[in-house]
Amino acid sequence: MLLKTTDINRLEQRYRALFINSLSGFKSANLVGTCDAQQHTNLAIVSSVTHLGAAPPLLSMIVRPHSVTRHTLENLLESGYYTLNQVNHEIYQQAHQTSARYPREVSEFDATGLTPLWQDGFPAPFVQESHIRLGMKFREQHHLAINGVEMIIGEIVHIEVPDTLVHEDGYIDIDGAGTVAVSSLDAYHVGQRLARLSYAKPD
Amino acid sequence: MLLKTTDINRLEQRYRALFINSLSGFKSANLVGTCDAQQHTNLAIVSSVTHLGAAPPLLSMIVRPHSVTRHTLENLLESGYYTLNQVNHEIYQQAHQTSARYPREVSEFDATGLTPLWQDGFPAPFVQESHIRLGMKFREQHHLAINGVEMIIGEIVHIEVPDTLVHEDGYIDIDGAGTVAVSSLDAYHVGQRLARLSYAKPD
Repeated sequence: MLLKTTDINRLEQRYRALFINSLSGFKSANLVGTCDAQQHTNLAIVSSVTHLGAAPPLLSMIVRPHSVTRHTLENLLESGYYTLNQVNHEIYQQAHQTSARYPREVSEFDATGLTPLWQDGFPAPFVQESHIRLGMKFREQHHLAINGVEMIIGEIVHIEVPDTLVHEDGYIDIDGAGTVAVSSLDAYHVGQRLARLSYAKPD
Repeated sequence: MLLKTTDINRLEQRYRALFINSLSGFKSANLVGTCDAQQHTNLAIVSSVTHLGAAPPLLSMIVRPHSVTRHTLENLLESGYYTLNQVNHEIYQQAHQTSARYPREVSEFDATGLTPLWQDGFPAPFVQESHIRLGMKFREQHHLAINGVEMIIGEIVHIEVPDTLVHEDGYIDIDGAGTVAVSSLDAYHVGQRLARLSYAKPD
């Protein structure tokens, strides 16, 4: 099928959300762990975490201030820290459930049965069931006026990854960690590696 | 292994690039098609295309102005249009090869054997071998001073997707399109769907 702007504008809201969310390809699946000043924890799945650069090590993510990620945003701005925990195939259903609209006083850790892990003095909770866990320091917030979302940029200041997954050259076997990818709004996939390709040069 | 900022800073440059690029999880794989005012085509693989919102339908991508994506950036700013073409398992090697640093006068279409497709008056070339193809109108450029990259925001104004891949509710079966995901800098994966989960509600 071929759709242009006028056709896109006519799509029913829920259809449109599932359809447009499919178009960028596979998305990363991460759980964002935060807490407020009273150490009340919060956990939210996000599919928009994106690599911005390796030096300094920066990741961005998109949050919607009026959606279920609003508590995540408040907490990370208040504390200055958050965690990112790769979602794997053993916990993807619990991870998805964190997207339900729980009241503020309910921790998604408790509601979904995932385990908060306090590590090494880091001021935000990690997810014990995740195999690749990042501690993030909040660096910048960019309000994108074009559609009212917030882009959060954080610096990776803490990395936990199983030794067995790290190749000699630095590549991490995220397949081996059981990491899942998201498509559209609600589909979860494991990845099967086709190949690693050599650094491309002309001819 | 556990790494903190001082450990991260000590990693050798190439190791660090492979390692840090693995941490966000799976990434989308898209080919960006552009051309200059003389219709000289350019094609570049990007792994940073991210869904920003469905209404209006917006995608972002990160480009490095001094890397192999510099011609892409120049072209899309000049013409105001570009295409995004999902990479599938039949063309991922050619898609990867577009990341080689060809001289400006060489089109990556010619160099890699991918076929430019001019559709319906759209002012940028699509990739014929891709099954899910988007025509994008440039909307905004955000310079991220924190590490010198450019975030490009575009609006989806043209969508081509095979009817057979679109479910009744709007979900697109990107597995069925053979779409690949990227991990780190050089690994390509097909996705195997575990499930689609229902809209999450408390209890």
